[in-house]
Amino acid sequence: MRMAITMGDASGVGPEILLRRFAAGQLGEDVVAYGDAAILSAGARLLGLTIPLNAVADPEAAETSKLNVVDLARLTASDLTPGRLNGRAGAAARDYVERATRDALAGRVAGVVTLPMNKEATRVSTPGFLGHTEFIAALCGTRDYAMMLTTGDVAVSHVSAHVPLREAIGLVTPERIVTVIRLTHATLRRFVDVPRIAVCGLNPHAGEGGIIGTEDGMVIVPAIERARREGLDASGPFPADTVFHQAIRQDRFDAIVCMYHDQGHAPMKLMSFESAVNVTIGLPIVRTSVDHGTAFDIAWQGKAFTGSLQAALDYAWKLLRC
Amino acid sequence: MRMAITMGDASGVGPEILLRRFAAGQLGEDVVAYGDAAILSAGARLLGLTIPLNAVADPEAAETSKLNVVDLARLTASDLTPGRLNGRAGAAARDYVERATRDALAGRVAGVVTLPMNKEATRVSTPGFLGHTEFIAALCGTRDYAMMLTTGDVAVSHVSAHVPLREAIGLVTPERIVTVIRLTHATLRRFVDVPRIAVCGLNPHAGEGGIIGTEDGMVIVPAIERARREGLDASGPFPADTVFHQAIRQDRFDAIVCMYHDQGHAPMKLMSFESAVNVTIGLPIVRTSVDHGTAFDIAWQGKAFTGSLQAALDYAWKLLRC
Repeated sequence: MRMAITMGDASGVGPEILLRRFAAGQLGEDVVAYGDAAILSAGARLLGLTIPLNAVADPEAAETSKLNVVDLARLTASDLTPGRLNGRAGAAARDYVERATRDALAGRVAGVVTLPMNKEATRVSTPGFLGHTEFIAALCGTRDYAMMLTTGDVAVSHVSAHVPLREAIGLVTPERIVTVIRLTHATLRRFVDVPRIAVCGLNPHAGEGGIIGTEDGMVIVPAIERARREGLDASGPFPADTVFHQAIRQDRFDAIVCMYHDQGHAPMKLMSFESAVNVTIGLPIVRTSVDHGTAFDIAWQGKAFTGSLQAALDYAWKLLRC
Repeated sequence: MRMAITMGDASGVGPEILLRRFAAGQLGEDVVAYGDAAILSAGARLLGLTIPLNAVADPEAAETSKLNVVDLARLTASDLTPGRLNGRAGAAARDYVERATRDALAGRVAGVVTLPMNKEATRVSTPGFLGHTEFIAALCGTRDYAMMLTTGDVAVSHVSAHVPLREAIGLVTPERIVTVIRLTHATLRRFVDVPRIAVCGLNPHAGEGGIIGTEDGMVIVPAIERARREGLDASGPFPADTVFHQAIRQDRFDAIVCMYHDQGHAPMKLMSFESAVNVTIGLPIVRTSVDHGTAFDIAWQGKAFTGSLQAALDYAWKLLRC
């Protein structure tokens, strides 16, 4: 079975990355794109690439030695508007993800790797659209999922993702923290016998024994204790400003559970800009993503770094094969 | 005039670092320690070092080629309890800082560089003690100050420091943000003509145009606009998970104003563990600090990294001389 790659927003770097990797012989035979053949065809001309495109209705129709695309035919060549916000491209990008997710749920593709959408473009037709993670989880009917970033060496999962910080604090509950510890453990135990999971505090210095906030002691500690009673190697809460050093530089942990989006994203994206893999854990399907956006400022100029797609593909296969 | 160095908690690495740097000829003639001669004397024996100690009552009595210490005589040799929490040592450490700060305010020392206190030890006698920054600001009678971490290349200042995250969100006001931008500008313009100051958002993706929280648009944007009207080169709000990359790897900014403690500390301490300098900006005196704690687990074993004291001293002199 092939891995689905959604091509992302037509105005961004997603389809460009797909075409350039195929042209360089770096895409492999085990993938199938989901997108618009009209964009890929016009995009190949724009980039001066000769690509044997194979537009198919279903992933099973993919052929060897071609760039196979499950063609949703939402767009025409005139929708190839590099770096420009295009509501039609935004709506189409959402549709690629929906179709690929449904095909993964039906067992027609091995999993889904996503190239970047432009949320603003998608919101033209879907107001309030939050992003791949929430959309795919809703399609899967999954409530207990989490966003994880991984460099391969260290994985960082998040108690909440795209919510205001004020609300994120309210989502720091023992139940949710235990859920994210369990999901993190279940994901990493495919590679590591007993994943060592550090849990971040919420407040500065993880609350310093209650002097700087109460959640660390009253919410996070009980969650860690519950996870430990279940046999998981969870520890903490650790201050956010030392635990990344301990995990990344001292190899003391395999994973860090963070209490909110930026607590994990800011250090991880500083360490591994555009090379970390974004994984949605807890889903019934494998789903990974490149960890960069549509990069409208450089889209279709042949400049975008294409290696993060490989990292996302490698991790998706690794999750399936371990 | 000499720079004051407070020796910090006797049970921690502070006095050890002082002694080892002096013994290695790395401390220089332009400093004077504030602490307890009894601890430094017993500590030198413990480390097997021969140190020409000069206990003085006032900084003006310092002599060349000696380790001069303004001796507060709070402790005896029996208080040298490596790695053990000692309430007397904690109280004494606070007193060294108070005396050095008062001497700096009186123009008797050039400024104050602090070695680590153990807040838990200090809280035995001073319940709720938050740390050097708040203590020194109170001694100076300063309300508009901020905590800044700097690597020399990039400085990160904080809208709030040691408060629970829930309260920190409430401290994100236009007035306070403008104050921190101004303090950051005033500090860096000693080295840079027009410091380029990036302002972080509060919410994930800096709120994404109001989709993920309102503070970024309604509080931070007006603050940036006000600072710009004053002629400061402030921009943002930028997402916390990309702005550090832009500042540190792409040299697009000289400083980042962060909305709360961990937003700045987590990326900075991952980048520059134990080598960043902590500066209190907005005070009438120069005050810098090493950016590590008492490290009780390795204290007095000859293992502690001593270089961060030099970084803190260098930055303090740099602030005075520019």
